[in-house]
Amino acid sequence: MAFGWIDQQVRVRTRRGLVRTLRPRPADSPLLDLASNDYLGLTRHPEVVEGAARAARTWGGGSTGSRLVTGTTELHAQLERELADFCGFEAALVFSSGYAANLAAVTALAPLRSLVVSDVGNHASLIDGCRLARGTSQVVEHADPDAVRKALQTHEGPGPAVFVSDTVFSVDGDAAPLAAHAEACREYGAGLVLDDAHGLGVLGDGGRGAPHAAGLAGADDVVVTVTLSKSLGSQGGAVLGPARVIDHLVNTARTFIFDTGLAPAAAGAALSALRLLRREPERAARAREVAAELHARLTAAGHEAVRPDAAVVSVRAPSPEGAVQWAADCRAAGLSVGCFRPPSVPDGISRLRLTARADLSEAQIERAVRVIGETRP
Amino acid sequence: MAFGWIDQQVRVRTRRGLVRTLRPRPADSPLLDLASNDYLGLTRHPEVVEGAARAARTWGGGSTGSRLVTGTTELHAQLERELADFCGFEAALVFSSGYAANLAAVTALAPLRSLVVSDVGNHASLIDGCRLARGTSQVVEHADPDAVRKALQTHEGPGPAVFVSDTVFSVDGDAAPLAAHAEACREYGAGLVLDDAHGLGVLGDGGRGAPHAAGLAGADDVVVTVTLSKSLGSQGGAVLGPARVIDHLVNTARTFIFDTGLAPAAAGAALSALRLLRREPERAARAREVAAELHARLTAAGHEAVRPDAAVVSVRAPSPEGAVQWAADCRAAGLSVGCFRPPSVPDGISRLRLTARADLSEAQIERAVRVIGETRP
Repeated sequence: MAFGWIDQQVRVRTRRGLVRTLRPRPADSPLLDLASNDYLGLTRHPEVVEGAARAARTWGGGSTGSRLVTGTTELHAQLERELADFCGFEAALVFSSGYAANLAAVTALAPLRSLVVSDVGNHASLIDGCRLARGTSQVVEHADPDAVRKALQTHEGPGPAVFVSDTVFSVDGDAAPLAAHAEACREYGAGLVLDDAHGLGVLGDGGRGAPHAAGLAGADDVVVTVTLSKSLGSQGGAVLGPARVIDHLVNTARTFIFDTGLAPAAAGAALSALRLLRREPERAARAREVAAELHARLTAAGHEAVRPDAAVVSVRAPSPEGAVQWAADCRAAGLSVGCFRPPSVPDGISRLRLTARADLSEAQIERAVRVIGETRP
Repeated sequence: MAFGWIDQQVRVRTRRGLVRTLRPRPADSPLLDLASNDYLGLTRHPEVVEGAARAARTWGGGSTGSRLVTGTTELHAQLERELADFCGFEAALVFSSGYAANLAAVTALAPLRSLVVSDVGNHASLIDGCRLARGTSQVVEHADPDAVRKALQTHEGPGPAVFVSDTVFSVDGDAAPLAAHAEACREYGAGLVLDDAHGLGVLGDGGRGAPHAAGLAGADDVVVTVTLSKSLGSQGGAVLGPARVIDHLVNTARTFIFDTGLAPAAAGAALSALRLLRREPERAARAREVAAELHARLTAAGHEAVRPDAAVVSVRAPSPEGAVQWAADCRAAGLSVGCFRPPSVPDGISRLRLTARADLSEAQIERAVRVIGETRP
């Protein structure tokens, strides 16, 4: 049987306690959510929901084609202008997902005979971008500008070189040393591609993101990718950068050219969220405060948690099975937390992953910490 | 300057007349649309729009996380059940795009030491899937079961083998010989992965798709990918197949595990469109009729058009510049048509690409054919 070989893999996964199953949630889940990436608590905000509904009514359920054929609407263009302006870049290009945006940015900027240097902790989509790129890729130590230097030094050309990194790493919530990375890249004339999925809306002035905070916004050698599905409560991704890079993506990026444009409802929801964030910039600071408080309380209670640089708080679990049990016990006690385990964690260490949403109340934070303590394996 | 190398590529593109630019459309475009992939004319149908708006109101602007964390809702599960049931497969898995679904299906089914055989005319996302897969890939002649046999014969194992093909090819609108392909695969115990992006909603009983029409629905050696962004007027993609394959994707497909789940509005719009298609199955036949009529009239008027197997009608243009000019002249005369040219066409031949929407009236078909004739270069 053609797909019978899969059963052997199922047996191995089962033995190792690594089987994943989908757990559909109801619309009115009673769980306290510390597992989503809805950092600013905007996805159910009436303005964001209305942004989605209005866009669907105005533009239809889908964008109807590739952005290069019929899939670009004035709504997409407006979102791109406002995103670029907010984050401080010359231009922006919206994709159907952050994954697609990352594949596009890396492949388009790492042509044949180029070098793409990649942080070992990078997101799967950046890694897949490196694997799809025509250039040679080299993986370097985590958050280590000297390792970046060493890698760039090996590049003999004639193609360009680029360094690719998350700004905030999803698993541990730690930030990359962006200024030092930029310095390393500039010594070698290399470009810098930063995935700010977990920074936008949380870091920088009013949530303008980690590159903005590091003084890199608008630089002619910096390209930033963002997602519309975390702080902006919607779906989609975008690449921000110099107009020449954005035009280059329009002309060469396969996940742009050969994909249907983002649905109007998603563009509308993201645009509404962005405008709301502009009007209420304190939401970004509040997400960081909640993260700091969660970390302080968990550490005080004896948990091993990583000091958060953004809104992700990572708590070490004893084993994959222990992490799964811990998360399940939290859930039984009314708390939804993330559970990261191999192969989603590069270092093989399982964790609970908590999201510090800006709209969590003091009572909710207290309850979350209590439940995590009571269910500790 | 880090990205200065791009300017050289711009010069080459400009010289060759291959520069692509985005043309944002207004919500109330007066153009007659024969360029989108809205095959059934559903994207602005009140039920589809209301499906999107209702889902956003009920579930929020985004799904808030990976499908494995918080991104799976009961809405996603419902859509998966109804999609699988409609197309005749055991199970389905919804992705944020058809591109992501194709990357997932190919990479998950072509592990290390496997062989993945790929039709030369396949969509970019299938090609990228082959490039990302750990298995060895071999490209074969277009729509040629004997070429598939020859390629499968070379595979020494020990991994499995799979053949990957579009069911309807986007550029010329021609269909793959599915029954013959299945026969070839079965001789060698190879799996068959079919991208039915342009078949769903158009081919098969009531629009159940090309695999259903070929008697392959529900077979234990067949996996089908579909898009929610064409006939279903929304955004997203799905993989349909045996439950063991779907579970395997949940556990291994990177574009599933590491991507945010499809936005509720997109899932809601697609579900409404699917139910509408079930209730009004004649829409599928009408799309095929419109295509046949367009082809007959264009051929009668002396154009070189490919006989359509689904809802795409491809008309040969004299050159890339000629195709661009032709499409621009159509647009000036009130008609929006697609224009395919290198590098989007594998054979280097430029074309006008017309979409036979099920909701085109006789008068609109007549007008389209007249404008195409009057603007012919």
